[in-house]
Amino acid sequence: MKLYDAVWAPSPRKVRMYLAEKGIHVERVMVDLRIDEQLTPAYLAINPRGTVPALELDDGTVLAETSAICRYFEARQPEPPLFGTTAEEIGLVEAWTRRIEAEGYAAVGDAFRNSRPVFADRALSGKWPAMPQLPGLVERGRAMWEHFLDMLDARLAQSEWIAGRRISYADICGFVAVEFARATKLHSAERASVARWHRQMAARPSAEA
Amino acid sequence: MKLYDAVWAPSPRKVRMYLAEKGIHVERVMVDLRIDEQLTPAYLAINPRGTVPALELDDGTVLAETSAICRYFEARQPEPPLFGTTAEEIGLVEAWTRRIEAEGYAAVGDAFRNSRPVFADRALSGKWPAMPQLPGLVERGRAMWEHFLDMLDARLAQSEWIAGRRISYADICGFVAVEFARATKLHSAERASVARWHRQMAARPSAEA
Repeated sequence: MKLYDAVWAPSPRKVRMYLAEKGIHVERVMVDLRIDEQLTPAYLAINPRGTVPALELDDGTVLAETSAICRYFEARQPEPPLFGTTAEEIGLVEAWTRRIEAEGYAAVGDAFRNSRPVFADRALSGKWPAMPQLPGLVERGRAMWEHFLDMLDARLAQSEWIAGRRISYADICGFVAVEFARATKLHSAERASVARWHRQMAARPSAEA
Repeated sequence: MKLYDAVWAPSPRKVRMYLAEKGIHVERVMVDLRIDEQLTPAYLAINPRGTVPALELDDGTVLAETSAICRYFEARQPEPPLFGTTAEEIGLVEAWTRRIEAEGYAAVGDAFRNSRPVFADRALSGKWPAMPQLPGLVERGRAMWEHFLDMLDARLAQSEWIAGRRISYADICGFVAVEFARATKLHSAERASVARWHRQMAARPSAEA
């Protein structure tokens, strides 16, 4: 089994954090996004989507979606649970994960991919026909991000962790989204409860993974 | 337990199809999207996102994300499995579901929400600050949809069902995306394998749910 990984990019970081929280070690192959190695014929033969992360199983099956890679490992090693154990926990982890991705992570991603000259005609990550950048998505992304932070702050004023009483995959997604926003200079005013939770996440060894 | 449901809209349809495949019956409350009932104070008190579907549990917990509602029921009633059983199946169902949503369903949604006059300044579904429509997303959505159909067709030329040897939640998401494209007149040339699989899905009783 091999995990195709990359430095800096947020999606591979989610997988590394997840694996660190689980205490799982996997052979890693680094893909150099600075030279677009993810779009070379050699890498596209492994993952036709042209994205990282990707997990190649021993039978040749490739999982090229962050949450699919983590759920694969969760099924193989349930402890400690990061996707919930009861039906209600399972539902809440998925609900918060989806909300973070659709309202927060997408906002940062849209603002980033549609503003940087290096992504001209490559507004979508991975292997696509030419896709022009849309400046309107930068503005929309900024507005979404502010709205998302208010929502997340209200949630974290009521709950220690995003999806309930213990850390879950939703916290990993939320933390990486906030870190992605910082790294791409999507500035916003500090929210007290988000800041409390961010410190709590940043103090975990998995934050260095 | 109550499921807040709506006619026509694609996300509630996914939940209805899922429940029909599982043989699960839930009390339903219809929300009238034509009069924006999902944005009324009464409904926002139940689901602050202002979206349907939403599942209200007996303890008052509300799951407002389609996949979270389905995963909640999957945990309560595993048979017949629609999210996989082995680690590899679980990974593949999630991988294909995410790919369908990000490359196909998002394409139709973008083209739809950013083109219809009724959604002026409401380009995102649910409760948001004013979000102007972006005509560029209509063009991008069309291009993404064509690319997605080619990819899906190649997959379905090799596999009876999207994620493997039996029907899964990924097929439900794919079917509803194709139906959503048809309903919103996002025309495209027929692909033989997609057409074969679409007939197979349309013949199931759950397609009428």
